[in-house]
Amino acid sequence: MVKELLQSDYKTLAVYTTDEQVLPFENAQPLLTVITDIQLSKISNLETPNKVLAVAEIPEQNFSFDAVASKISLALDTINDPGNLGTIIRTAAWFGIETIICSATTADAWNAKAVQASMGALFRVKVVYADLEKVVADYTKNDIPVYATTLDGDNIYTSELAANGLIIIGSESHGVSKELLSLIDKKLLIPSFAAGNAESLNAAVAAGVVCSEFRRRG
Amino acid sequence: MVKELLQSDYKTLAVYTTDEQVLPFENAQPLLTVITDIQLSKISNLETPNKVLAVAEIPEQNFSFDAVASKISLALDTINDPGNLGTIIRTAAWFGIETIICSATTADAWNAKAVQASMGALFRVKVVYADLEKVVADYTKNDIPVYATTLDGDNIYTSELAANGLIIIGSESHGVSKELLSLIDKKLLIPSFAAGNAESLNAAVAAGVVCSEFRRRG
Repeated sequence: MVKELLQSDYKTLAVYTTDEQVLPFENAQPLLTVITDIQLSKISNLETPNKVLAVAEIPEQNFSFDAVASKISLALDTINDPGNLGTIIRTAAWFGIETIICSATTADAWNAKAVQASMGALFRVKVVYADLEKVVADYTKNDIPVYATTLDGDNIYTSELAANGLIIIGSESHGVSKELLSLIDKKLLIPSFAAGNAESLNAAVAAGVVCSEFRRRG
Repeated sequence: MVKELLQSDYKTLAVYTTDEQVLPFENAQPLLTVITDIQLSKISNLETPNKVLAVAEIPEQNFSFDAVASKISLALDTINDPGNLGTIIRTAAWFGIETIICSATTADAWNAKAVQASMGALFRVKVVYADLEKVVADYTKNDIPVYATTLDGDNIYTSELAANGLIIIGSESHGVSKELLSLIDKKLLIPSFAAGNAESLNAAVAAGVVCSEFRRRG
């Protein structure tokens, strides 16, 4: 992940390593400090730190409607679990989603667990925090579709899906908030093929299935 | 999850609760012991235990080819992370997959983290541990297709997918083992839409996308 950080637009402030050979990047050299295993384990959050640790600035990123208008973007409404958030960021990167817009009630994408779960994708996907009601208003005003995954939505497999727009993923426990749902009309359901009704889908898995469904039509 | 356990085929041995009102099931009554919050926190693995804890027998389940021959089943080759394993079990339940066959090198499905991540689906999906090479041989002998997700596979969106068969999901770090891959000819790829090549997919998300793709054709 440090390699990916150094290849990204993030501003890296310092790199500490126990093995100078580990980072063959020119731009790492001026930032590099060689330290001992004991020093690394003292400054790392990880139980079993790898050979390298980097310090970087969290970018200041604001929502810009113009930057996303022609793309498919994800919005996350109250994804509390940082591991789930990181996995969603990783999934978005796979499916070429460039921007994720998080509600203020969503976990911190730069939380250590979210960073780990993103497997470096955090450095390539633009993650912004914004008022989702205002974001949805921007889309609606410009006649660009906004989708939300809900349990009473239309079967996603047979629904018309646009080539650009916003897809809102809700929390596992409460789904997409009523306030947001009242602003949109394109509700999508990933159908369950289970015999009973007790099943549910992990938020990151749901995001993956939805992204796959949008991309496979492209 | 205790409710789902009591409604399942699992043999529940005891149920401990701090609130007798919490389990309105007739079959729970003979098993029920009311305890204090302090007692519950002492016997629970969870940091913040809920009001109820159950003890159940892990079922002895063996692989039976006849039981799966006409169905879509999942095989897991070295899924190490119990959280990922639990999420895959949950995902399988959503998509109506009845049986998951795990390599001996896959995490324990009854590990506390796997049970939690499965959200009760563990009690409804049959999870068996078996020698995957022998299992694949059973499928091949009976001319039933075996699929594996690989990075050099055919685009899953445009591949022919059977209504029954086995889908092998490999580990995130090493993929499906060479030995297994040498036994099968149907390799599938979930295409990446990323600009670069550094992306990867979480194993549970990949399982979700693959299950969705098989089911949407049905």
